[in-house]
Amino acid sequence: MTETLRVALAERAYPIHIGVGLIDEPASYRPHLAGGRSAVITDQTVAPLYLARVRRAIEAAGAQVIEIVIEPGEAAKSWATLDQVIDRLLAARCDRQTLVVALGGGVVGDLAGFAAAVYQRGVPCLQVPTSLLAQVDSSVGGKTAINHALGKNMIGAFHQPQAVIADVSTLATLSDRELRAGLAEVIKHGVALDAPFVGWLEENVERLLAREPAALTHAVRRSCELKAEIVAADEREAGARALLNLGHTFGHAIEAGMGYGEWLHGEAVAAGMVMAAELSVRAGMIGAGEVRRVRDLVARAGLPTMGPALAPERYLELMAVDKKAARGNVRFVVLKSIGRAEVRGDFREELVRQALAACSPGAAAAR
Amino acid sequence: MTETLRVALAERAYPIHIGVGLIDEPASYRPHLAGGRSAVITDQTVAPLYLARVRRAIEAAGAQVIEIVIEPGEAAKSWATLDQVIDRLLAARCDRQTLVVALGGGVVGDLAGFAAAVYQRGVPCLQVPTSLLAQVDSSVGGKTAINHALGKNMIGAFHQPQAVIADVSTLATLSDRELRAGLAEVIKHGVALDAPFVGWLEENVERLLAREPAALTHAVRRSCELKAEIVAADEREAGARALLNLGHTFGHAIEAGMGYGEWLHGEAVAAGMVMAAELSVRAGMIGAGEVRRVRDLVARAGLPTMGPALAPERYLELMAVDKKAARGNVRFVVLKSIGRAEVRGDFREELVRQALAACSPGAAAAR
Repeated sequence: MTETLRVALAERAYPIHIGVGLIDEPASYRPHLAGGRSAVITDQTVAPLYLARVRRAIEAAGAQVIEIVIEPGEAAKSWATLDQVIDRLLAARCDRQTLVVALGGGVVGDLAGFAAAVYQRGVPCLQVPTSLLAQVDSSVGGKTAINHALGKNMIGAFHQPQAVIADVSTLATLSDRELRAGLAEVIKHGVALDAPFVGWLEENVERLLAREPAALTHAVRRSCELKAEIVAADEREAGARALLNLGHTFGHAIEAGMGYGEWLHGEAVAAGMVMAAELSVRAGMIGAGEVRRVRDLVARAGLPTMGPALAPERYLELMAVDKKAARGNVRFVVLKSIGRAEVRGDFREELVRQALAACSPGAAAAR
Repeated sequence: MTETLRVALAERAYPIHIGVGLIDEPASYRPHLAGGRSAVITDQTVAPLYLARVRRAIEAAGAQVIEIVIEPGEAAKSWATLDQVIDRLLAARCDRQTLVVALGGGVVGDLAGFAAAVYQRGVPCLQVPTSLLAQVDSSVGGKTAINHALGKNMIGAFHQPQAVIADVSTLATLSDRELRAGLAEVIKHGVALDAPFVGWLEENVERLLAREPAALTHAVRRSCELKAEIVAADEREAGARALLNLGHTFGHAIEAGMGYGEWLHGEAVAAGMVMAAELSVRAGMIGAGEVRRVRDLVARAGLPTMGPALAPERYLELMAVDKKAARGNVRFVVLKSIGRAEVRGDFREELVRQALAACSPGAAAAR
């Protein structure tokens, strides 16, 4: 059974299809193949699993397929890989009607989406996320980017896809670590936006870790619903969309400080979300019980509740360049309660240091 | 006296200010400096002429200025230069409210505009064109791009500026060659869209070459008007905007075939426009007298009416990858009459070869 949500963006509106077996269905691709050609961009991990199946379905829908397989991992979100992809698109004489199909996790979606955004000033793109993180978060909303040595996602574009095809059967091949990293974004959607969904997650986190299809489908659908609403209201992150960055200011610093790829994005967001809760409690916004709920849910999902051994000065330096900084003040997404996030840029550095200390490896021993 | 046109693009609408001395006026920048910071991107040719003046005006408007000076010339439209610019923006901790000011000719406008399009997924941009080509064409309409070894402007974005500030007094420092290259785009606007303007150009081309301010102002204003109308109707080049590419399919092949920078863009467009006219007459669309008018006007502007010594096979190969190709058919902008262009993709290769032959160095001797 396929469920379809809609991202309401006027002339850029598009559907999100969620179901089992969608990648094999020619109908998933057919509406987007008016140009008669596609370039499927995927990575070396996903290619052996799903590329042939996607190729077969697109060819059955009557279009040509060019295959572009990149290195796996966060390091591929680079100028060098983007340049290779553009080379391949040009060498294959892909024109402006060529459909770019992003088949894979968040890295593939971000890189392929950005390639589609800038190739000949923009070609259509279909997001076919195969990781939980990509299905619940990165494939929806049109954010695309590559990284820079000085910060994550510093170079990118808003480029809405033609559609998102989330086939939950692809989650069966995820490693446990990748599954948990995806759960971090699911938890983030609840903690930032929807208290009842947090309650559901507290009831069902073990079912999700056991990959029960019904539980996964519900988690993907509710996450996409929450994200689609926010994106429709604020496509370019002028306001409400920033709430989806809960945990990301700290999280990006962890990723950049450790070198991209050491920590998975979801792992960094998980620890960052706990840091944001610790900052919120120190600012008198929430109580200790609410911090404990966030911390416990993150821990039960098998995700880190503390950061790596990184000096506070290094965090502060890395966060200062984070793109959510406005006029030099670092802004954080913090909590007014479970399910109600808010963006604030008025925290004293001392509070931020305390929140970091509460999540440092040393603090765990002391607690 | 300042004239102001408007590019009607709903929530992305913006003004084009045309006048003398505008770069020195704080009021030119003030409405766009809400973020309190600007990054002025210019090249080594323009910097000694105008950078200090622009800096003074922006500082008088109350904002900080970061200066980024790139190499001059088409070769700067590269990954490498873009990467340098992004490095500088990040090192200076420019945030999403920082105004990018593109001060210079078409290369600076395209590169700085693209940097603004992708830096942190898009920051505001002010176009301050200082060449005729940039004032009449490239600064208006939001097209930004860098080049690739396999084709010009293959990587880019549509990113509309906050405003265009065309100070015609900056045209005084242009070389004759640059001035003529800009005239190519002025002529293109007339030949593609506006027969009366072609008549005006036939009367006034010598006044333009002599840089009479009144003549230049009229040429800039009418060109911007024509372009603004087209852009408002078709921002992303789905239809009418392609007409502005008259001469560009051939022209891009000349530039790519010779190596970017050998021929100025305007020079390549001038020869390309004559080739397009020669193709049009061979397709029975216009008469020999109309081809002669195009050829004569181009020649009187001191621009090339024939291409370089490039084999026809090389042209055809280079044009096949041109981004205006749809489903493998090379599309050309051709003429139904002077002032009425049309896009067609149904020309036999033999006709294209004949048009190329009519504009080859050998043909000139034979004529």
